[in-house]
Amino acid sequence: MASLYLAEEIRGREEGDLQRIKLVFEYEGTRYHGLQVQENAHTVQREMESAIHNLTGEWVKMLFAGRTDTGVHAVGQVGVFDSGSTIPADRWAYALNSYLPEDVRVRSSEAAGADFHPRYQALSKTYRYLVYRSGAGQVFYRDRALCCRDTLDIEQMRKAAALFQGVHDFRAFCASGTSVKTFAREVYRCELHEESPLLWLDIEANGFLYNMVRIIMGTLLEVGRGKLPAERISQILDSLDRSQAGPTAPPQGLYLLKVNYPGG
Amino acid sequence: MASLYLAEEIRGREEGDLQRIKLVFEYEGTRYHGLQVQENAHTVQREMESAIHNLTGEWVKMLFAGRTDTGVHAVGQVGVFDSGSTIPADRWAYALNSYLPEDVRVRSSEAAGADFHPRYQALSKTYRYLVYRSGAGQVFYRDRALCCRDTLDIEQMRKAAALFQGVHDFRAFCASGTSVKTFAREVYRCELHEESPLLWLDIEANGFLYNMVRIIMGTLLEVGRGKLPAERISQILDSLDRSQAGPTAPPQGLYLLKVNYPGG
Repeated sequence: MASLYLAEEIRGREEGDLQRIKLVFEYEGTRYHGLQVQENAHTVQREMESAIHNLTGEWVKMLFAGRTDTGVHAVGQVGVFDSGSTIPADRWAYALNSYLPEDVRVRSSEAAGADFHPRYQALSKTYRYLVYRSGAGQVFYRDRALCCRDTLDIEQMRKAAALFQGVHDFRAFCASGTSVKTFAREVYRCELHEESPLLWLDIEANGFLYNMVRIIMGTLLEVGRGKLPAERISQILDSLDRSQAGPTAPPQGLYLLKVNYPGG
Repeated sequence: MASLYLAEEIRGREEGDLQRIKLVFEYEGTRYHGLQVQENAHTVQREMESAIHNLTGEWVKMLFAGRTDTGVHAVGQVGVFDSGSTIPADRWAYALNSYLPEDVRVRSSEAAGADFHPRYQALSKTYRYLVYRSGAGQVFYRDRALCCRDTLDIEQMRKAAALFQGVHDFRAFCASGTSVKTFAREVYRCELHEESPLLWLDIEANGFLYNMVRIIMGTLLEVGRGKLPAERISQILDSLDRSQAGPTAPPQGLYLLKVNYPGG
């Protein structure tokens, strides 16, 4: 691997100087107990940190843009770590992939400022919730979408989705027992798309509460089934009462799609 | 379950009378050593026969429309078995699914004539080969498509695909060492479709040789990469020589889509 290091050495970085590396990576969450390290649990973070250790001999502690739960997926998760290795920043993606399991892939790597924090510096995050509506082919979507063959009124769901846009107190759409300082979030975009047999919700916000997207989706499905009029969304938001909203949609339909930072 | 049986009893079928049941079912082949029972291997057939046993107490031997190898999938596989159970034919799908693993699902069940054979009576079968061409999202397709980011000349591939249509001796597109009587098959349809980031080949024929679709796809990819002119297909067919064709594309992109019988 000596040739890999040469360019960096010429530029004067030395082994031991810490550099913050930013990774954009994707994973299929099915096999993991979520993203973040917990004792005795198989997590994506443990796989990433093990891969870094196997590559460099260093044990690092990664920071991430957003947590994901068991079974939840990511296409554009962002993580950082500090390394004393002289591997050039843009080669980490390639180098790590040979140490990672097949359901975790680093898409790109670059150098980040020493104070870059993937969560605090994010302007917004975009999540997608995917529903598969066909009887045929469900085995291929069983852990990558919510498989649901109910008749749905998509127009009513669209109307309801639009009502989430703007600044709201999202307490009614947050798993109870969460300890956060404020429940106010701004949803920039909450749009339903249909391309039969798939239906998906794209939602972009400056931040998300625990289970927020899954409760929003569970509530939209109730609207689609005609159990809840679309207009009720505003009242549910105002109620600040979790029990007024619909059920939490299952994890396998949820994807962290993209984290947006200043300057792209 | 007594109520399930009632309707049949009224119609006069009695426990022990054999009835041939036809199932249309789908499976994700990733976890299996193919469809058909082999000693000490985890196969779809074993799961199906175990489910039937757990439901009825009977051990049956199933017959199928087409074999699939390790890692190959099916959306519309057809299988039959004879059962002495009084479960109404159309209830088998529902009843079996609660005994099957999540990656095998019965889509429909019906009564078939006592001489119905799912392979011999098939008019044609349709296979699909799926290619995923994006860098993002590969973890979600790694076992459901061939992930390939090469630049491909789709028009040349389309031209080449059309040359497989008609009656040909497909010896050059058959895994060597196969013992079959005749290598002549009629391909009714061989069409390439693109909906970025997906590319797929749909091929319908009156029969398929061992690895035929995967070798055709491997050869089409060589055409797409510019390594083989489209016109070469006819010469390769004429050569009857496996070594003239391209490599065998990997199993995870292949799906048995549909089996066609007289009368639909």
